Amino acid sequence: MVQPTVHPADRLLGAIEELGTPICVGIDPVLERLPSVVRAEHWEPVVAIERFCAGVLQAVAGVAPCVKFQSACFERYGSAGVASLERLVSRADALGLIVILDAKRGDIGVSAEHYAKAAFGHRPGPDWLTVNSYLGEDGLRPFLVDGRGAFALVRTSNPGGDALQTLALADGRAVSDAVADMVAGVGREWIGKSGYSSLGAVVGATKAADAARLRLRMPQQVFLVPGYGAQGAGPADVLACFNADGRGAIVTASRSVIFAFEMDDAAWINAVRTAAARFREEIAGAMRGAGVGAR
Amino acid sequence: MVQPTVHPADRLLGAIEELGTPICVGIDPVLERLPSVVRAEHWEPVVAIERFCAGVLQAVAGVAPCVKFQSACFERYGSAGVASLERLVSRADALGLIVILDAKRGDIGVSAEHYAKAAFGHRPGPDWLTVNSYLGEDGLRPFLVDGRGAFALVRTSNPGGDALQTLALADGRAVSDAVADMVAGVGREWIGKSGYSSLGAVVGATKAADAARLRLRMPQQVFLVPGYGAQGAGPADVLACFNADGRGAIVTASRSVIFAFEMDDAAWINAVRTAAARFREEIAGAMRGAGVGAR
Repeated sequence: MVQPTVHPADRLLGAIEELGTPICVGIDPVLERLPSVVRAEHWEPVVAIERFCAGVLQAVAGVAPCVKFQSACFERYGSAGVASLERLVSRADALGLIVILDAKRGDIGVSAEHYAKAAFGHRPGPDWLTVNSYLGEDGLRPFLVDGRGAFALVRTSNPGGDALQTLALADGRAVSDAVADMVAGVGREWIGKSGYSSLGAVVGATKAADAARLRLRMPQQVFLVPGYGAQGAGPADVLACFNADGRGAIVTASRSVIFAFEMDDAAWINAVRTAAARFREEIAGAMRGAGVGAR
Repeated sequence: MVQPTVHPADRLLGAIEELGTPICVGIDPVLERLPSVVRAEHWEPVVAIERFCAGVLQAVAGVAPCVKFQSACFERYGSAGVASLERLVSRADALGLIVILDAKRGDIGVSAEHYAKAAFGHRPGPDWLTVNSYLGEDGLRPFLVDGRGAFALVRTSNPGGDALQTLALADGRAVSDAVADMVAGVGREWIGKSGYSSLGAVVGATKAADAARLRLRMPQQVFLVPGYGAQGAGPADVLACFNADGRGAIVTASRSVIFAFEMDDAAWINAVRTAAARFREEIAGAMRGAGVGAR
């Protein structure tokens, strides 16, 4: 069982070490893509989605060290969806998976403390939460509590994110560089034995050029790297997110793993497990090929 | 009953016109500050909070045109808190109040669409949602649907927000100016008969100097102005957020209204109503004094 006093970065890096490859399976369920057998058995959308996600957790446990739940996919079903998410987080925890809740919360003061309570107020609960950086340090600190961690949005992988985050500041930095420097500064106060902080950073995998620069600005941040697979980034694109010792990043794939089956495949759980293993091999192979993490 | 085809800015400005003053009561309940009588009757925290909020809605209906629920205060109680919030939003709608859900959501693509469904997928539901701007236009557009509106974070009232949002860009603008220009540009596509957009802006009342500049950059945005009362801004500070005709902003006070009673006051609902009326008179008086909205 989890000891709340373990530093979240140490725990995450330990889990990665144990399974050998820094991958995370993103759980972004949508009703339209569930296997026919799940939809046939569960008419109620939110029940079908919970059943599906339980199968995905079973498939990826032991293959990936970590899962990331997209909160929006559950919140769209209101309080019933949130209750499903709570049960699934417990189940993931019981399966020994590190859990990231991708909810991109962002507020200040007592409201941020409420959000921290919402995410981290109970065990079992998520180990990490994604948070938005636009409100500054006050929007980050409340989440750095009690053995839990936060991934702050630094560089996102969408065109609209580019427009704002690449703007040049008068001092020569990009806006995302300034955010990175803030994250590195706040995170420095929360370093684990592994040398990494409980304040990590979200850095989109489709921005390899930026990633290399941000890696230098945030040497102690674990990078959560979305955008692999269905979002278009390949293995080579994500390598810039790692430190030379092969640590410091975890690569997320969602749709390319969790929907890797034919709709009417009754053995869809096996297909998801196979896709997760393939994802693991792709990342491991790319890292070996580039000499990243060769120790 | 609400017609979903009414433009949300037209509806909001109509409700303000009807009650005479552009105020919004922020509903940020915390257990520790509930009236003794409510706590005594309802042992379960989330039940006590729901009962309290129902009393606040009863107190402010007919005094203020609009209420803003702080989602974090409910989310901290998990799915049970979210269910409470759903019931309270319905109740506010039935009382004829315009409802803003202050959840500061921010995501892109299908995840943003899920969040839009979560907020706006049902009637009754909130009329407006607060959203984070850091992900750019892709993080705003999915919320501009079907008679509902969004307030995008442009300038927040906290020290950490200052540090990032006032940074100077190479082109001479501040970061928050660039966000304002983006919001004005996207919002231009969604203008109602009133001349205002369904994409509004959050502009903290403690930043009067910024507010005047941002008002010029975003002539068609309704400003949601937090920070009045307990957060330290006075009536004069908020005037810069209005256009010369007295429209274009709505001022929010939370704690100074909803907790305006002695803990053991059994008539606390009356005290809240009195505080809401006082808030209305302060804002109306300041606007008259400055000649804002004299037509």
